[in-house]
Amino acid sequence: MLVATVIGNVWATHKDPSLEGLRFLVVQPMDALGKGTAETIVAADPMGAGIGERVLVVFGRAARHVIGKGHDIGFQTAVCAIIDRMELSGSSYGPHEDQDGNS
Amino acid sequence: MLVATVIGNVWATHKDPSLEGLRFLVVQPMDALGKGTAETIVAADPMGAGIGERVLVVFGRAARHVIGKGHDIGFQTAVCAIIDRMELSGSSYGPHEDQDGNS
Amino acid sequence: MLVATVIGNVWATHKDPSLEGLRFLVVQPMDALGKGTAETIVAADPMGAGIGERVLVVFGRAARHVIGKGHDIGFQTAVCAIIDRMELSGSSYGPHEDQDGNS
Amino acid sequence: MLVATVIGNVWATHKDPSLEGLRFLVVQPMDALGKGTAETIVAADPMGAGIGERVLVVFGRAARHVIGKGHDIGFQTAVCAIIDRMELSGSSYGPHEDQDGNS
Amino acid sequence: MLVATVIGNVWATHKDPSLEGLRFLVVQPMDALGKGTAETIVAADPMGAGIGERVLVVFGRAARHVIGKGHDIGFQTAVCAIIDRMELSGSSYGPHEDQDGNS
Repeated sequence: MLVATVIGNVWATHKDPSLEGLRFLVVQPMDALGKGTAETIVAADPMGAGIGERVLVVFGRAARHVIGKGHDIGFQTAVCAIIDRMELSGSSYGPHEDQDGNS
Repeated sequence: MLVATVIGNVWATHKDPSLEGLRFLVVQPMDALGKGTAETIVAADPMGAGIGERVLVVFGRAARHVIGKGHDIGFQTAVCAIIDRMELSGSSYGPHEDQDGNS
Repeated sequence: MLVATVIGNVWATHKDPSLEGLRFLVVQPMDALGKGTAETIVAADPMGAGIGERVLVVFGRAARHVIGKGHDIGFQTAVCAIIDRMELSGSSYGPHEDQDGNS
Repeated sequence: MLVATVIGNVWATHKDPSLEGLRFLVVQPMDALGKGTAETIVAADPMGAGIGERVLVVFGRAARHVIGKGHDIGFQTAVCAIIDRMELSGSSYGPHEDQDGNS
Repeated sequence: MLVATVIGNVWATHKDPSLEGLRFLVVQPMDALGKGTAETIVAADPMGAGIGERVLVVFGRAARHVIGKGHDIGFQTAVCAIIDRMELSGSSYGPHEDQDGNS
C-alpha cells in the first residue's frame, strides 16, 4: 500500500469491457520526505479523489475488493482511501490539517 | 496499472504453447513528467495498439482476464486500454487530443 | 518481506469500509547498510509498533493473514513482527539490543 | 513480462525438492535503449536458452504454468520464450535477425 | 527469483503466531556484476544458510510451498536453495567453486 498524490486523469474509449464506467487517476507515490517520486501509477478511483489530494493506493486482490466487482476484471490498482492527515516522524502536514483525522 | 508508450514489437517462434497467437509489444512506462523511464515491459496486446500510442498496462489476474483465456497461461502482463487523453496537474497532452475522450 | 522503520501515521475518514478500525503506519524500508531508503510504504499494524521501531512488513496473502480478516479486504500490506535485534554481517544494532532477541 | 538476456547459470544441490531437475539461468532485464540493467533475476528455463540469447521472462502463476508442474512448487520465475526478433521504435536488432520471426 | 547473499539475522519476539519457529535472514540481492545492491530483503530460511552464502530467494506462493506450512501464514519470502556455483557470462565464482555443482 502506498501514499500517493493525485496528479492527473486518464481517459480511454478503446478498452477492455470490464473497465467500463471506472474513473482512472494518475497518482504519484510519495518518498520518505513527503515529496513525489518520478514514478507514476494509474489507479481506479471509487472514492472521488481530486487533483492534489493524497490517497492510499492498493494492488491486486485488495484493489479488486475496493472496486467491488469480484475477481475477474482487467485492472489491479485502486484508491482505497483519501488521506485526512499524515504525520512523518513527528511533523504533521496534509491538505486537511484542520480535520480531526480519526481512523 | 501503468501508463506506458508502445516502443516496439517482439517475435518468438520457440515459446510456451499458451503464448501462440498473442501479439507482444515492448512498452515503456511513463514518469511523473510524462517522459519515458529507462525500464521496459513486454505486454500481450489484444487492443491493437500501434507504435507511439499510450496504453494502460495491467498485471497478474487482471492481465489474464483481459486476454480472455482463463487462468493457466504463460504470461502475466497485458494492454487493457489505449489512452485517448491524459491530463497531468492541469496540463493536457496525448496522441488523440482532438477526441472526446470520455471514460 | 522487508525490514522497515516506522516513520509516521496516516488517518483517513473517507475510505473503503473494509479498512475500518485498522491502524495505518508509514514505514521506510532499510537498505543494506541499515539506513532508510527514499521509498515509503503504508502498512496496516495489528502489532502496536511505535515511531522509530523496526518492523517486518509483509505483502499480499500473508498480510491478509496477519490482519486476520480473511481474503477480501481492501489492503495488502501489514506489519507482522516488531524486531528485537538485527545483526548485519556480524555487527549488531537496534532499539532493543539489551533484549534476548530469541526467535 | 520482461525482455532479458541470459548472462549465466546457477547450480544448487541443497535446495527445495520441488526444484529438482529444473535448469536455472541468471538473466539481465533490458532497458529502453536495449541495454542491460544492473538488476538480475534467476529464472527456471524449460526452453533451452543459451548464454547471450534474449528471452521473455514471466512471473507467478504464469511461470508455474510454463514449467508445467502445477501450483505448489518452490519457484515463481520462468523463461517462456526465446526471442527471434525485436524492433524498438523502428530499429531492429537481435541474435536471430535472419529468421522470419513470425509470432 | 533472485540471487542474494546472506548478510544478517533478524529476531522478533512480538510477532504474528504463524511466524513462530521460523528463522529469518537478511539477504542482499546481487546485481549484474555479481555485487550486492543497496536493497535488502528478509527471507524465512528452512535451508540453514549461513552468513556470506549465496542463496536463491522466492516469493509468494512459491515461498509458502518452500516453508511447507500451506497457504495462510504471515510471510511471503523464503530461501529455496543454497547456491553451489554460479557462472556469469563465462566467468565463474562463488563460495563453493570446488564443488561439482550439478543441478
